[in-house]
Amino acid sequence: MTQNIYDDPEFFQGYSQIARSIGGLDAAPEWPALKAMLPSMKGLKVVDLGCGYGWFCRWASDQGADSVLGLDVSEKMLEQARNTTSATNIKYARADLEQLALPAASFDLAYSSLALHYIKDLPGLFAKIHAALKPGSRFVFSIEHPIFMAPRNPGWLIDSEGNKRWPVDSYQLEGERVTNWLAEGVIKQHRTIGTLLNTLIGADFRIQHVNEWGPTNAEMAAQPALAEERERPMMMLVSVQR
Amino acid sequence: MTQNIYDDPEFFQGYSQIARSIGGLDAAPEWPALKAMLPSMKGLKVVDLGCGYGWFCRWASDQGADSVLGLDVSEKMLEQARNTTSATNIKYARADLEQLALPAASFDLAYSSLALHYIKDLPGLFAKIHAALKPGSRFVFSIEHPIFMAPRNPGWLIDSEGNKRWPVDSYQLEGERVTNWLAEGVIKQHRTIGTLLNTLIGADFRIQHVNEWGPTNAEMAAQPALAEERERPMMMLVSVQR
Repeated sequence: MTQNIYDDPEFFQGYSQIARSIGGLDAAPEWPALKAMLPSMKGLKVVDLGCGYGWFCRWASDQGADSVLGLDVSEKMLEQARNTTSATNIKYARADLEQLALPAASFDLAYSSLALHYIKDLPGLFAKIHAALKPGSRFVFSIEHPIFMAPRNPGWLIDSEGNKRWPVDSYQLEGERVTNWLAEGVIKQHRTIGTLLNTLIGADFRIQHVNEWGPTNAEMAAQPALAEERERPMMMLVSVQR
Repeated sequence: MTQNIYDDPEFFQGYSQIARSIGGLDAAPEWPALKAMLPSMKGLKVVDLGCGYGWFCRWASDQGADSVLGLDVSEKMLEQARNTTSATNIKYARADLEQLALPAASFDLAYSSLALHYIKDLPGLFAKIHAALKPGSRFVFSIEHPIFMAPRNPGWLIDSEGNKRWPVDSYQLEGERVTNWLAEGVIKQHRTIGTLLNTLIGADFRIQHVNEWGPTNAEMAAQPALAEERERPMMMLVSVQR
């Protein structure tokens, strides 16, 4: 089973305080770019893999999705997700994404936000997502960027002129990366971009769009702290077709 | 027109001394990985975009290609390429890849090694390559990796424990990168991986394989200097289908 770090009290407490936990989709700087990669929700059967507090599920329902299934490994997050909606077309269920079981050819869209870098068996998960999607439908996700995740000791260096630089090492060494983000010992799985894309292709998905998210000029003007996101990519947003 | 740095006497002199100029394909550490992405050459009509000394053209001819067209902007390199083959099915021609003109649906394989990062109008070039290929055929290329190319001052940092780290900055700032490799003022075009892949997809290619080249254990044992290529990706090898 995947490490269930979200039910760790220290992690959960920390996570509940970050901007996107409080402000939802609009507090996530990559959301406009990710939204632009999504089809219209009208009439779609949607599954959200790693739904957390359910922000996306509620948005999809509001946008006219036929039904939304939100899956998460964290009981605490699912509890909060259930407590913040009265929409009858949203269903939440506990699921370990390493052991996903979904009905075949049942969904028009699979969505996942910043969850897949916790998964060990990505080929297995992609095969199950492929099987759960109807032919022609989409899988859209965000994932931590391998350049962000690769280093032994991730962090900025400031050069003599005050510029931020992101030192990369160990890029080709795939496998566990243990960080202390919100709690100690958070385990992520580093893979190269090549491996990520080839795993999707190997699961018979067709790559449609790849966005290594960075802020627009307008976003930087509104939120100057985003400037560092221009220096190195932190997230990848990917859209594929079944 | 693209900067024709290869006909700069200083650059040409320097380039003629590097391992892959002297030793050809077998002196290029990425060649085994790139070769593994190629179809059998038997009976294929092949075009090599940026053929240099013609090492790949001769290999393709030796492997049974029906015909090979080697294109390069450098007269000096074409002269040497012509002088080192007597194969009648190889033809060399001068071409600026920014102004490519090829007959429609005429080739079974387009190949390009470490040339595309010099190209400004990549959407235009990809559209022309697409038009020149027969339906179902392949375009396989290598290109400098955006992580290698992005920084203002590319180079290794050595940390206090002697580990090599590759500081990344300016990743989202696409455009010219001027380096002093073999000669001063060599101009390359930085693009994100997302832009590269989306430009291929926009030209109606289907992504088949992405390899961010790094050495195998056997390659590192045979050539210990390759160890640093594990720390950050230097090249991308890409295979797409028309």
